[in-house]
Amino acid sequence: MDPFGAPYCETKVMDPTGEKAQTPRSLQRRRQVLDAAAICFRQYGFHGASIAQISKAAGMSAGHIYHFFESKEAIIAALVEDQLDSSVERIARIDAEHDVLRGMLDSIQVTFAEKTDPEYVGLWLEVLAEAARNPSIAKVVQAADQEIRQRVTRLGQSARTSGGIDSSVKPEAVTEVAMALFEGVINRSIQNPDMDKEEVLKVLRIAARAILEA
Amino acid sequence: MDPFGAPYCETKVMDPTGEKAQTPRSLQRRRQVLDAAAICFRQYGFHGASIAQISKAAGMSAGHIYHFFESKEAIIAALVEDQLDSSVERIARIDAEHDVLRGMLDSIQVTFAEKTDPEYVGLWLEVLAEAARNPSIAKVVQAADQEIRQRVTRLGQSARTSGGIDSSVKPEAVTEVAMALFEGVINRSIQNPDMDKEEVLKVLRIAARAILEA
Repeated sequence: MDPFGAPYCETKVMDPTGEKAQTPRSLQRRRQVLDAAAICFRQYGFHGASIAQISKAAGMSAGHIYHFFESKEAIIAALVEDQLDSSVERIARIDAEHDVLRGMLDSIQVTFAEKTDPEYVGLWLEVLAEAARNPSIAKVVQAADQEIRQRVTRLGQSARTSGGIDSSVKPEAVTEVAMALFEGVINRSIQNPDMDKEEVLKVLRIAARAILEA
Repeated sequence: MDPFGAPYCETKVMDPTGEKAQTPRSLQRRRQVLDAAAICFRQYGFHGASIAQISKAAGMSAGHIYHFFESKEAIIAALVEDQLDSSVERIARIDAEHDVLRGMLDSIQVTFAEKTDPEYVGLWLEVLAEAARNPSIAKVVQAADQEIRQRVTRLGQSARTSGGIDSSVKPEAVTEVAMALFEGVINRSIQNPDMDKEEVLKVLRIAARAILEA
C-alpha cells in the first residue's frame, strides 16, 4: 500500500504548490491537520513535534498528512497563510468603513485580544523562533508580512487623507511601528500575563493615534 | 572519576542557587558555557540543543557544564538574568541623567540596535517560545520582567515629574506599551529585516514621546 495514499479523500487533485486539496471534504481534513499541527508545534516546538504526533493529534495516518503537506515546513507555511488571510480580511473591513482612522483605532481592541490569546501567542512565537534560524520559514513569514504591510500602509494613507493629515513621516515607517506595537503585545503577554488590559489599551490607542496623525 | 567533577575550576564553591561559581577563573568558564549555550539554543532551539552540543561548543566536558548548571533550564535562567543585569544597568544610567525624559528618548536608538541584533533576536525568541509552553521558564522570564518593569515605571514617573507632566494614564500601562514597542521591534526584525531603520526610529520616538507625555 502506498503510504502517501489518501483513501479518505474524495479527490487527489492538488494545486500547483502541492499543498491544497480542493473538495470541501478534503479542505476539512486539511484544516484538521493544520489544527493538530498547531497544537503540536505549540506543545513540543517545531523541531520537537513529529509527523507521528501530528498524525495522532489529527486522528489520521501519517500518509494522510503527507497527502496534504510534504513537510513540517509546508504545514508552517499554510498556518502563516491562514494568518495572512485573516489579517487581509480584517484590513479590508476597516478599509470599507467611512472613517478609516476611526476604524483603525476601533480595531485595536480586537487585534489586542487576538495578540494576547495564549493559543495564538504560543504558535506565533514558535514560528518566529524557527524563522530566526530557518531561511525557508523566514521567507514564508517575510512574504506574508509584505502583503500585510502594503495593505496597512495603504490603509494608513487613506486614514490620513480622509482626516486631512499631512504626514511628516514615511507611511512605511508608521506601518512598521504600528505593527511593532502589536507584535510587542504578543511577547508582553508572556512576560507580564497579569497586565491591566484596559489600561494598556488606553495607552496603545494614544500611541497609535500619535503615529497615525504624525 | 566523578563525571560532575570540575578539575579545571579553582573552586567548587557555589552560591545557594547552585548556579554560580565564584572565582574569576570559574566565572570566566561559566561565561564560556553561557556563550556556547546561547549559540546552540539559537541554532537548534532549546529542545534541539543537547548538553553534548553545548559542551562541544564550549570546549569543555559535559561534567564541567553540570558543575555550573544543573540543567538547560538553569542555563536559560542565567541567560535571562544576564539580560536583566544589562537592562538594570542601562536604566540606572538614564536615571542618573539631569533630564530623564531626554535620557529616555535618547536611549531609544541604542535599545533599537540591541533589539534588532540577530544574535539577541534569535536567542530571545527561543526563550519566549519556550516560556510559552514551559512554566518554569515562564516564571524566570516573568520575574526578570517584573524587576525591569518596576524600574522603567519609576524612570517614567521621574521623567514626567521633572517635565511637569500630569499624566492622565496609569504609569504601569505606559511602561507596558513602551516595553511592547521594543519587544515588537524584535519580532519585526524577523518579519521585515529590510525596514528603513532611520525612518522607523523617527516614528518610534513619536510614539514614545506621546505615551510618556500622555
